[in-house]
Amino acid sequence: MTGASYHDKMSKTIQEKRMPPLALPICLVGANVQGRPNFCTIAWFTMIDDEPPTIGLVMAKERRTKDGIVENGTFSVNIPSTELAVPVDHCGIRSGYKEDKSEVFRTFYGKLRTAPMVEDCPVAMECTLKRIVAFEGTDMVVGEIAEVYADDGCITDGRPDPTCLDPLMYLSGGAAYHRLGDRIADAFQVGKSYRKGR
Amino acid sequence: MTGASYHDKMSKTIQEKRMPPLALPICLVGANVQGRPNFCTIAWFTMIDDEPPTIGLVMAKERRTKDGIVENGTFSVNIPSTELAVPVDHCGIRSGYKEDKSEVFRTFYGKLRTAPMVEDCPVAMECTLKRIVAFEGTDMVVGEIAEVYADDGCITDGRPDPTCLDPLMYLSGGAAYHRLGDRIADAFQVGKSYRKGR
Repeated sequence: MTGASYHDKMSKTIQEKRMPPLALPICLVGANVQGRPNFCTIAWFTMIDDEPPTIGLVMAKERRTKDGIVENGTFSVNIPSTELAVPVDHCGIRSGYKEDKSEVFRTFYGKLRTAPMVEDCPVAMECTLKRIVAFEGTDMVVGEIAEVYADDGCITDGRPDPTCLDPLMYLSGGAAYHRLGDRIADAFQVGKSYRKGR
Repeated sequence: MTGASYHDKMSKTIQEKRMPPLALPICLVGANVQGRPNFCTIAWFTMIDDEPPTIGLVMAKERRTKDGIVENGTFSVNIPSTELAVPVDHCGIRSGYKEDKSEVFRTFYGKLRTAPMVEDCPVAMECTLKRIVAFEGTDMVVGEIAEVYADDGCITDGRPDPTCLDPLMYLSGGAAYHRLGDRIADAFQVGKSYRKGR
């Protein structure tokens, strides 16, 4: 086995069994619950496939938005910009079981007709529920993206404009919202300059 | 049903069934394959639970790093800073089936002893494989985080220092790497100022 042993060369602190710090995008998950839009804020989600485009959302077992997802078989994923930090955070700290969140955002519907999307977000997508993967303490809602809606100018010829999107990021552990920063390199390109030996 | 209809108020473009633009953190997944460290670069991963801390990594069905994860039942997740863009991108565009990537980074081992971690990353964690969830075109490797290692100063009293971490972000669709930008608000706090009515 190669590699230096930990104590020889490093000045890393062992943080034990804990959550790592991660800079994560925030999304608002939307669903109708008994005919009224509800939204919850999550940072634990990931793309699962690109063809067909599939997304997975990690949620607590008990979530009013999840009730609506199961009720309709549809949901939305909305990507807020930083200017929405206050209502987005509000939707993260207030439960839909205790508070009606149907009027926090301006909403619209697309071709699925039952997935409320957030007009205030520069990017919104509507999804059909494919599967719920149960984990010990959480569930992953897996959906196929049916349609993506983007503010004019935010995506041009398939390329997103980061200034237009201005996505709200969450630094876990730090309990802080951040902006996305400067572009620094081309992905799938800059690595071609890699040469062995440091 | 509440909410404005799409065509009344919006100037959003329908992007059809496609990948949404998302600003995602990048990680290097590490595993030993037949005794040698291998690393692959992914942006599709999410936390799954915080107690016990559990992480899910989406990977193509055929990945040399995944072979090593299955072989050992352990793997690492390493969070690179922007200064590692070149070798990280290299590990994303070159397959471990075709190229030995064991010496791209300086590696170390922790208590699991078989999960090679990247010394060059400010944060690294070692994980035990709990489960592989099969999707149509991808698999999700689910692991429990056994230990987190962080460069001195990057996490103080449990709070991460974003300047020290300087995480490498990927804007999907744009094929661009970005920095994390400025802190703009306190999460779980700023939403308390929300008042109904816009």
